[in-house]
Amino acid sequence: MSRNAPNAHALRHRVVIVGAGFGGLFAVRALRRVQVDVTVVDRVNYHLFQPLLYQVATGVLSEGDIAPPIRDVLRKQDNARVLFGEVVHVDLATREVELDTLGGAMRLPYDSLIVAAGAAQSYFGHDEFAVHAPGMKTIDDALELRGRIFGAFEMAELDCEAAERDAWLTFVVVGAGPTGVELAGQIAELSRRALRANYRAFDPRSARIIVLDAADTVLPPFAKPLQRRAHRDLEALGVEVQLGAMVTGVDATGLHVKRKDGSTDRIDAHTKIWAAGVQASPLGASLGDQSGAPVDRAGRISVQHDCTLPGHPEVFVVGDLMSLNRLPGLAEVAMQSGHHAARTIARRLDGDTTERPFRYIDLGTMATIARFKAVVSIGRVHITGLVGWLMWLVVHLTFLTGFKNRVSALANWTIAFLGRGRRQRTITEQQVFARTREIPQPKGGVAERET
Amino acid sequence: MSRNAPNAHALRHRVVIVGAGFGGLFAVRALRRVQVDVTVVDRVNYHLFQPLLYQVATGVLSEGDIAPPIRDVLRKQDNARVLFGEVVHVDLATREVELDTLGGAMRLPYDSLIVAAGAAQSYFGHDEFAVHAPGMKTIDDALELRGRIFGAFEMAELDCEAAERDAWLTFVVVGAGPTGVELAGQIAELSRRALRANYRAFDPRSARIIVLDAADTVLPPFAKPLQRRAHRDLEALGVEVQLGAMVTGVDATGLHVKRKDGSTDRIDAHTKIWAAGVQASPLGASLGDQSGAPVDRAGRISVQHDCTLPGHPEVFVVGDLMSLNRLPGLAEVAMQSGHHAARTIARRLDGDTTERPFRYIDLGTMATIARFKAVVSIGRVHITGLVGWLMWLVVHLTFLTGFKNRVSALANWTIAFLGRGRRQRTITEQQVFARTREIPQPKGGVAERET
Repeated sequence: MSRNAPNAHALRHRVVIVGAGFGGLFAVRALRRVQVDVTVVDRVNYHLFQPLLYQVATGVLSEGDIAPPIRDVLRKQDNARVLFGEVVHVDLATREVELDTLGGAMRLPYDSLIVAAGAAQSYFGHDEFAVHAPGMKTIDDALELRGRIFGAFEMAELDCEAAERDAWLTFVVVGAGPTGVELAGQIAELSRRALRANYRAFDPRSARIIVLDAADTVLPPFAKPLQRRAHRDLEALGVEVQLGAMVTGVDATGLHVKRKDGSTDRIDAHTKIWAAGVQASPLGASLGDQSGAPVDRAGRISVQHDCTLPGHPEVFVVGDLMSLNRLPGLAEVAMQSGHHAARTIARRLDGDTTERPFRYIDLGTMATIARFKAVVSIGRVHITGLVGWLMWLVVHLTFLTGFKNRVSALANWTIAFLGRGRRQRTITEQQVFARTREIPQPKGGVAERET
Repeated sequence: MSRNAPNAHALRHRVVIVGAGFGGLFAVRALRRVQVDVTVVDRVNYHLFQPLLYQVATGVLSEGDIAPPIRDVLRKQDNARVLFGEVVHVDLATREVELDTLGGAMRLPYDSLIVAAGAAQSYFGHDEFAVHAPGMKTIDDALELRGRIFGAFEMAELDCEAAERDAWLTFVVVGAGPTGVELAGQIAELSRRALRANYRAFDPRSARIIVLDAADTVLPPFAKPLQRRAHRDLEALGVEVQLGAMVTGVDATGLHVKRKDGSTDRIDAHTKIWAAGVQASPLGASLGDQSGAPVDRAGRISVQHDCTLPGHPEVFVVGDLMSLNRLPGLAEVAMQSGHHAARTIARRLDGDTTERPFRYIDLGTMATIARFKAVVSIGRVHITGLVGWLMWLVVHLTFLTGFKNRVSALANWTIAFLGRGRRQRTITEQQVFARTREIPQPKGGVAERET
């Protein structure tokens, strides 16, 4: 606890871990009984349980339910400290990480480095879409979308033309992967069930929810029967599934779509959500430049079989930033690769320097469409419907357990799923002010806003 | 549900209610069985249970726990609709309310009007303090303070000079009324208990929490024995109570204080919270101009004995915006005056036009200092300690009941009070970016932030 503590341990092996997502967190946990000094750095103060982000965006869970503070998760791990800041550069030659904090710049020397910086939303070269169609990668994204979704229903309740009301009641989710499918399903449940009797000028069940994708199936990574089942489940909920549809433009009041047959059309919709692609952290490009490792179009860096950079056995790249054996960008891959990197460091300190390749064990994938409806794939076994949903629930609660949020998340889920309501529907004033810049004002003009 | 519905009811008496705080909400509820058309207007989409706002600021509860959507609370009240917008003007001559919405300007004609627009934070003419010392009146305030409080501990964990660390670990609450006392008590509990083992560079128990006030007692409206007890309880928690201390300046890194003996000094503290005064809605001044009713320094408008404007029996002013019989700005006063206004409208429609003055029934006041510690005053009866705290808990849970948030709030309270943690500690990135403009950067300079 003394200010000289770092010097007292100067001889201990220093491990720096960049990012406290699934990859980083599993790496630091795997080092808990190893004689090292671990420093975990993240630009946010929480570990994000990303698979449930869509539940924050739709008012089921609060941000705290899925985002435990990193330092609280690690409070009992004495060999680890957590620093709040953004890594702007890794210097492979001097073995230092450059950190940008609110208190100034810092340089962190390392003996071993695990880069688990993850990925952000990708707009495939159209970053200008972002302001009109927020992504689904961060707590800020989810809170922004929550404000937009509930705000859209508020707007529809104001006196307005029928066409304008229809545009407020149209929700377009771009991307039919697990996130897009889950989000569309939740918005459908919201409008069909949770918001019942809340409005006087319209029936919320009349809301139109569209999920669209350039691919010709929903849930591309899943097996055909599960795709068909998910497609059917979505339509039963009232979601329009539009496949072979490429978004060519997004603006404040709608989006332009090019169909598979070459035709184009416009969808009038105030609320657009982008769940279509990811772009790895910019750290990847820099690490590629310095080490000569190839970086793919999505910004992911090709690593050796043991997750290290070529020529830099002390540097590991794991999770969404890693390109290895065509592994998908799943939480499970991040966890296992983070764990592998940490175990490799521990083995080396024990004198075992043999190189062991990372082997991913596929524990199965799942996606939930709505309450009581999920698709689960474990090897060749497919499970759907209520049983699939119960499996999904058990797995997600088990993961949250480690973060001590199980009791409250369970309470909130019980209320939200079995009850009628959505507890988290707050639109902050900050969001309202931000949006006044974006929403086109009618010609009648608006009186000056008082402060 | 048809678009002509408003015309179909054109002969019904139209009641417009401005604001859905305690005054507005109790007014609309009191009209639920009356043959009127009620329109409730608010600039936010939630009813704020303000007495628990400090629990959002300190991570105990989520915003949704204390801010149920207005339209969900009123979903079963068929004669009421809710509009999301800000009232910028009331025209007493034409009997219209001018509404500024994200969809444009609207004019709402009324037959009876209840103005329950409440009050905002007052900086006593020093609005420039606000950026450095946010108030405690809105959900946005509470979320901003949550980010600053947990962010301050993050900053202290970064490598920094001892003096700088002390300034990050000093929290100053300006104002020793119920809000200030409750907030200071919660920050003390946070640092003494909830954040245990979270940091490596310092012990969070070393945090300094100061509550200061120009008055010479804490909790001015309470009786002397309760003030003494609250003062003692605060000090036992480790809170420094500084009385007779007037704030003369606030900046990013501290504040200037003038003591009762005329001396002045500076307190170095990055986190300042303003809980010192209120200023009624600007609508008060405009209503005073039009009706000739006096408006006091705090912006409150003097009403007739039945809460109406002089010369305008169809316009009621209730709650914090109302000045009548020196009644304090309490939730209970707002509820009872809102109810009185609604009942008066209902009586008149029944043909009873006798004027009945508003009579406030004092049901007691309470303030909580920490878990298991509260002071309660019911007439001449004083209750303190655990019994007082249990009363406080029952009363607050009972009020939340009506909003259906009881189960989850109870679950969250149980976890937070009896357990060790604070579930809601998210710092949004939006807040971090906003703060980079305010925090002075050290001379070493900071590398460019990547986006």
